[in-house]
Amino acid sequence: MQKIRIGIAGYGNLGKSAELGIRQNEDMELVGIFTRRNPSSIKVATQGVKAYPIDEAKNMTDKIDVMILCGGSMSDLPKQGPEFANCFNTVDGFDTHAKIPEYYSEVDKAAKAGKHVSVISSGWDPGMFSMNRLMANVILPEGNDYTFWGKGVSQGHSDAIRRIEGVKNAKQYTVPIEDAIEKVRKGENPILTAREKHLRECYVVAEEGADKAKIEETIKNMPNYFAEYNTIVHFISEEELAKNHSGIPHGGFVIRSGKTGMNKEHSHLIEYSLKLDSNPDFTANVLLAYGRAAYRLNREGVSGAKTVFDIAPAYLSIKSAEELRKTLL
Amino acid sequence: MQKIRIGIAGYGNLGKSAELGIRQNEDMELVGIFTRRNPSSIKVATQGVKAYPIDEAKNMTDKIDVMILCGGSMSDLPKQGPEFANCFNTVDGFDTHAKIPEYYSEVDKAAKAGKHVSVISSGWDPGMFSMNRLMANVILPEGNDYTFWGKGVSQGHSDAIRRIEGVKNAKQYTVPIEDAIEKVRKGENPILTAREKHLRECYVVAEEGADKAKIEETIKNMPNYFAEYNTIVHFISEEELAKNHSGIPHGGFVIRSGKTGMNKEHSHLIEYSLKLDSNPDFTANVLLAYGRAAYRLNREGVSGAKTVFDIAPAYLSIKSAEELRKTLL
Repeated sequence: MQKIRIGIAGYGNLGKSAELGIRQNEDMELVGIFTRRNPSSIKVATQGVKAYPIDEAKNMTDKIDVMILCGGSMSDLPKQGPEFANCFNTVDGFDTHAKIPEYYSEVDKAAKAGKHVSVISSGWDPGMFSMNRLMANVILPEGNDYTFWGKGVSQGHSDAIRRIEGVKNAKQYTVPIEDAIEKVRKGENPILTAREKHLRECYVVAEEGADKAKIEETIKNMPNYFAEYNTIVHFISEEELAKNHSGIPHGGFVIRSGKTGMNKEHSHLIEYSLKLDSNPDFTANVLLAYGRAAYRLNREGVSGAKTVFDIAPAYLSIKSAEELRKTLL
Repeated sequence: MQKIRIGIAGYGNLGKSAELGIRQNEDMELVGIFTRRNPSSIKVATQGVKAYPIDEAKNMTDKIDVMILCGGSMSDLPKQGPEFANCFNTVDGFDTHAKIPEYYSEVDKAAKAGKHVSVISSGWDPGMFSMNRLMANVILPEGNDYTFWGKGVSQGHSDAIRRIEGVKNAKQYTVPIEDAIEKVRKGENPILTAREKHLRECYVVAEEGADKAKIEETIKNMPNYFAEYNTIVHFISEEELAKNHSGIPHGGFVIRSGKTGMNKEHSHLIEYSLKLDSNPDFTANVLLAYGRAAYRLNREGVSGAKTVFDIAPAYLSIKSAEELRKTLL
């Protein structure tokens, strides 16, 4: 079997997880890591695989079938997405929801020009959660959607706390409110404010002598990030943070509650939930599966940008269509 | 907007639910009901829509875009599936798992000959549960699958009880065992026997003077249906059965528990669950969404048998690809 040759662009948490994920997929092999840092400073975990300067990728188009883009959505992907789509089949987890239409259009143009397939906004939200929202909506046209996130670490909120004066380190957990989920599960179709859906729990390491009361107040009143939520602040030591809060767990729930019947007398509930020890490991594994799909679609002559909505599930699996019908249907 | 013209073949529970489901999809209209019974004995709920003898369908190929096949998997579909696939785009919920490869092949031949698209084995299991098993497997290649059904009415088990001497009527509920689900959710990856996953609860109306002890024993020892499970038998009155057990609820859980990480140190849980007041209403709505997909694929020149694995989610929705990216991604 000819393996799918994978490149990884960006070697942070997501890139490292993608590297490990490749080991779980026997039809894939890692060709190289592409980085903006000095390649000699990078210790690649896979024996025999080198790190290259990211600009060298374009000279390796004949060696790589799919490039997994592991950069950030804020500044990396808007530039890298279209550039790489021109040279490779790509897959990314672009997650700035409001900018997806614009990003799609840029990547689509580049992918079509380069005759490649680029899957954008894969992962779990956007990604698996989006697909479940879509599936639940087509099955229950009359109903309400609910998405809850967590319990899990929000990188953005943790960063926001770290920028406060007197804060040495911090981790923020987004916590879904069980009572709200239960109301939804009971088919009560509640209208929920941000505060009623999630609370925010913060573990903060203060610098020595810092004004903790002021830090706590600053966090709790931060607009967009915390002011709209009930927020709990715990001050802990650096050791405690390292010991109990070094993981990157996440998860969440997508629920649709809908009605059918002659007089809407029948209630239905569709729920999809994730409980993840490692957000980057899980996200990377989704990206790899869509990388396989990008590769296969491209071999069939397809080009352009795609999302999870545009790809038939069979393209994601290493198994043949016959095998899938026999074993999983 | 040109509506998708739908025919319904078979007017039992599923057919009646499909009729109601069409009202929830503004791009669809019902053209006719096709039945093996005497059409004049059928009261169609939709004003202006007629019931026809099933054999007349083949003379109406220019009036119907998609035929929803609502017959049973045991004897109706093996014959009707290929026959209708030759004349119409079709969608069905063929659910005899062991015979799917054979059925697929028959329908595929007929659909290709007739240049139509036929979606087979749609619904929720097979159907949504299958798709979730597939998605969870591609994301977590190393892990275990668990499917629990219920709490819900099993028609097959209810029928089996009704065939026992002295039984006037009966309803059987398949009940998933909460303790087993909890073990799975905790990532314990248990190996579970049939008995450990589900129990069977039976509500039985005995004929006057019947030997209840004997009925109960016969139920509990029935091989394949009950002997492998813990079974609870309640004797109730016909009135009680009508009052408390006339619904057809169902549901269930598809869970995959998997590992990632350098040393498999990260556990992940993907769970999809359904809680349905009406099994036929929900199933019919899934069939209708795949009917839309069959119609669209066929307009693009595609023909042949398809399953939920072969269809990109966007084909199921009334919304455009742009709208989906903007609102649901």
